[in-house]
Amino acid sequence: MPHDNLLSNPLPSWNEGKSKKAVINFVESVTSEANPNFVPPMDRIAVFDNDGTLWSEKPFYFQMIFALERVKALAGLHPEWKETQPFKAILEDDMQGFLSKGMKAILDVLFATHGNTTSDEFEQIVLEWITSARHPTTGRLYTEMIYQPMLELLEYLEAKGFKNYIVSGGGIEFMRAWVEDVYQIPPEQVIGSSIETEFTMRPEGPVLVRTPKVDFVNDHEGKPVGIFKFIGRRPIMAVGNSDGDHQMFQWTAAGKGPRFIGLVHHTDQNREWAYDRESWVGKLDKALDEALERGWTVIDMQHDWQVIYPWEVQT
Amino acid sequence: MPHDNLLSNPLPSWNEGKSKKAVINFVESVTSEANPNFVPPMDRIAVFDNDGTLWSEKPFYFQMIFALERVKALAGLHPEWKETQPFKAILEDDMQGFLSKGMKAILDVLFATHGNTTSDEFEQIVLEWITSARHPTTGRLYTEMIYQPMLELLEYLEAKGFKNYIVSGGGIEFMRAWVEDVYQIPPEQVIGSSIETEFTMRPEGPVLVRTPKVDFVNDHEGKPVGIFKFIGRRPIMAVGNSDGDHQMFQWTAAGKGPRFIGLVHHTDQNREWAYDRESWVGKLDKALDEALERGWTVIDMQHDWQVIYPWEVQT
Repeated sequence: MPHDNLLSNPLPSWNEGKSKKAVINFVESVTSEANPNFVPPMDRIAVFDNDGTLWSEKPFYFQMIFALERVKALAGLHPEWKETQPFKAILEDDMQGFLSKGMKAILDVLFATHGNTTSDEFEQIVLEWITSARHPTTGRLYTEMIYQPMLELLEYLEAKGFKNYIVSGGGIEFMRAWVEDVYQIPPEQVIGSSIETEFTMRPEGPVLVRTPKVDFVNDHEGKPVGIFKFIGRRPIMAVGNSDGDHQMFQWTAAGKGPRFIGLVHHTDQNREWAYDRESWVGKLDKALDEALERGWTVIDMQHDWQVIYPWEVQT
Repeated sequence: MPHDNLLSNPLPSWNEGKSKKAVINFVESVTSEANPNFVPPMDRIAVFDNDGTLWSEKPFYFQMIFALERVKALAGLHPEWKETQPFKAILEDDMQGFLSKGMKAILDVLFATHGNTTSDEFEQIVLEWITSARHPTTGRLYTEMIYQPMLELLEYLEAKGFKNYIVSGGGIEFMRAWVEDVYQIPPEQVIGSSIETEFTMRPEGPVLVRTPKVDFVNDHEGKPVGIFKFIGRRPIMAVGNSDGDHQMFQWTAAGKGPRFIGLVHHTDQNREWAYDRESWVGKLDKALDEALERGWTVIDMQHDWQVIYPWEVQT
């Protein structure tokens, strides 16, 4: 879309309807100086979940696919993994076996694949993967599986003086390696889960080493804590898609003045996936109840979006 | 200073000399597109220590004075403090007694005075103090004891497309309560030490509660870790005044391309204070050695600055 059409025709991939109207009404009201809801630019903070909100998250969170593929890539250096769980299950493509081992197994894989490098090295590893790995069912690059209507929303908000932040349960350094290119969001506007890093003086100079220890889990109750830690103020707009965003919604909504809370509801089994209350990935249950009760905007992917992915846009 | 003079006459309170020249040469070189050292605006990240770099820190860090005065303000609610150390020493104005009790005593006071409130309540407590408390020797508000030449430097960098961050060992929420008014630096550009906060649902709504647990110490090795966590990239300019900034200097200097490292050296016992290698507050020893060895810019407060505080400016 040519940029000069952005303000005269915002959100072109959104169907006319309640969701699009709610977004535009909110943005217009907080950016019009004459409106009693006017919010000065410095307070126009919008926060977005990533997995399932800005890009897809099926069959598993893409960062988990990265970790599993990384186990295979590193297996030659770790012959013991052939006989050690949960690595054995992964190397044998036994996903049920891996997932049955619970959170401890996930953390073991996370540390083995995300720790013990410098931050610079890790960025390179992520970049190599994200620019070459392909999604198991679509065959697309993962960065192609972003939502066109959300890109338009980010761009519209930016043009209206908002500062957009990603606030994800995913890894902060995993995301920062590529989100600036893909979403035009700079690294300092990315908040995520982290493992501890340590400053270490090496012969070649000082480096930051990623250690196999959890630093912060930016999910559920962690999201408002992470937002306040990084930004120091309360957003006026929050968009997510799962119960992991519930506390972020509640804390955002509790601020004084106008607020916009949006939930991306995965309702399109043909163009994307359809899931909510029963899904392991992106479970949306309690937050959906509260959204319906309080009149938050539930974005119905099937009905509200003309296209899902950028490659579907007619040019 | 009128803003339109800023770029034709930057740093008016700095005496002509090596330090002023080094700053201006660096800024000019990284902001001139024709220069081989040119740095695009998004990478123009500058980090500043706070205590002793942007404002004074004697006789003790001002946040410690806040904590000690807070002990006295809260003493009525804690009759047991009259008989419990380190509170007893503080209530009896026995600073030697208090300091002799070491880091444990400091943490006890920190938790007692900085924890167990919501984030909103803590902001109010800090604001009330910072707008009324007076420095023991100058009788000034603490926010008047900021360095005029550094305000000019922040303003000059901002005008040249830099993004200025405060990176302090001081408390992140303590600083965020007032730095935007005083330095024109928004809360999301403030990085500091923190205690853990917890998301809690109360009858009146969700709040963030400050708990008596250390979350992160943003000092020494913590500074590069904090910078990378919050910003996700390496600064091209770092200014500090003590060994607590040493690793921030080293990590900033180790980046590829042009770098500016500046140390504020407290050399003016008449207009401010004179101290370095032997001082308990703001000790500058190893970082000074490395600065001299590597040719980093040592800013001599007595010789390089025409005035120290804003109230000295002739209008």
